[in-house]
Amino acid sequence: MNRTAAALVIGNELLSGKVHESNTLTLARALRPLGIELRRVVVIPDEVELIAAEINSLRLTHDFVFTSGGVGPTHDDVTVAGIALGLGRQVVRDSTIEALLREHYGDRITEGHLRMADVVEGTERYPGNSPTWPTMVLGNVFVLPGVPQIFALKLDGLLPRLRGAEAPFVLRSVDCAIDEGPLKPFLDAVVARFGDVSVGSYPHWGDDDHRVRVTFDGRDLARVTEAHASFIQEIPPAWVVRSD
Amino acid sequence: MNRTAAALVIGNELLSGKVHESNTLTLARALRPLGIELRRVVVIPDEVELIAAEINSLRLTHDFVFTSGGVGPTHDDVTVAGIALGLGRQVVRDSTIEALLREHYGDRITEGHLRMADVVEGTERYPGNSPTWPTMVLGNVFVLPGVPQIFALKLDGLLPRLRGAEAPFVLRSVDCAIDEGPLKPFLDAVVARFGDVSVGSYPHWGDDDHRVRVTFDGRDLARVTEAHASFIQEIPPAWVVRSD
Repeated sequence: MNRTAAALVIGNELLSGKVHESNTLTLARALRPLGIELRRVVVIPDEVELIAAEINSLRLTHDFVFTSGGVGPTHDDVTVAGIALGLGRQVVRDSTIEALLREHYGDRITEGHLRMADVVEGTERYPGNSPTWPTMVLGNVFVLPGVPQIFALKLDGLLPRLRGAEAPFVLRSVDCAIDEGPLKPFLDAVVARFGDVSVGSYPHWGDDDHRVRVTFDGRDLARVTEAHASFIQEIPPAWVVRSD
Repeated sequence: MNRTAAALVIGNELLSGKVHESNTLTLARALRPLGIELRRVVVIPDEVELIAAEINSLRLTHDFVFTSGGVGPTHDDVTVAGIALGLGRQVVRDSTIEALLREHYGDRITEGHLRMADVVEGTERYPGNSPTWPTMVLGNVFVLPGVPQIFALKLDGLLPRLRGAEAPFVLRSVDCAIDEGPLKPFLDAVVARFGDVSVGSYPHWGDDDHRVRVTFDGRDLARVTEAHASFIQEIPPAWVVRSD
């Protein structure tokens, strides 16, 4: 059975165009080799009620939910409060995380820093590989920070936990020198023959390298390889710029 | 009254990590000067039923909905079918768009190309500035292509239509040489005094240029300017790396 994931990305800075969101790309790329399908990404502002509603919707419809952002020490970091509201639980100070924060910041520690020890009641602390403090887990919800470098580090630390028995997704592609119109009958043919392979067609603009990238995705390496080879064999050789 | 917007981004290639989504950044940056608040971004796969459900949810809760992706000629382009299902309408071939496509492609035209003339019944054709064919509009839903260069061109063509009476959002920022812990009391103070200004605090990693960017957003230029100046006046001068 396919395991599915959703990402809940929290941050006014993304919706106002200050920052180009990249954590969902990191997440998608980390999940594919595990055979987990990212099915939905939702980006919302730093608002407690919205976070509460969304977390409840996503956690019931996906095997894993990853939140990104809103877990720092400042007034606009309301993810923990939002998840607590969604689950109908209290926010409590975690003494283990508090001790880690005190050790990390020493004399420089402030009440602001200590807010990062406030967690939803019942939070599991999953040991992250870095930075020092653990990742907050609530059932199938993984609470990750928005800073891309730390998001990636913490996600990497979670991978052993996410690993399952599924075959990883495999990907093959062909870059074509022709546009989608003439390609369409060949695409339709390969789609009809390989129902278990996901075939994508992506126009490429901005330079003359190729016009369309055609991709073949699936869990069955043999079938993906066969679909890819079959497509290349059918189209005129001059249309193939490269094949991966 | 604030006008709001949502983006519905459609494409397996984004959820599988093949492509770094950038159209919502383009959209967010285009809407801010118009005073339109982007409140929600949803990324989903190329699936008709999902598109139908999502378009219905978003169009009833936002003033404007922008879709991105899934409008080309190939089997994985199902946005028009999804919107049609959501609205309970037929897909019909638009003779005006068909004529434009025939003019553009000439002898090279294929049934694949002509699929791009298939629209949801009742679609309004809003004149785009380029490429040749118009943008599909259904009430408050604007149907845009996923290719970033064309998305940007078509969005640009829509701006006169989106322009309203609202004041644009204005933005000021301060880059700080200190982390969020010590900044927190100063942030809390400015947040308390300027309830009508949205104050953001964003840790910066990856180089030593600054530790945190603090931003001040709002529609009232005088209030935003005052909040920004007040914050700079309160924090120790050595903490200020730059102010914009």
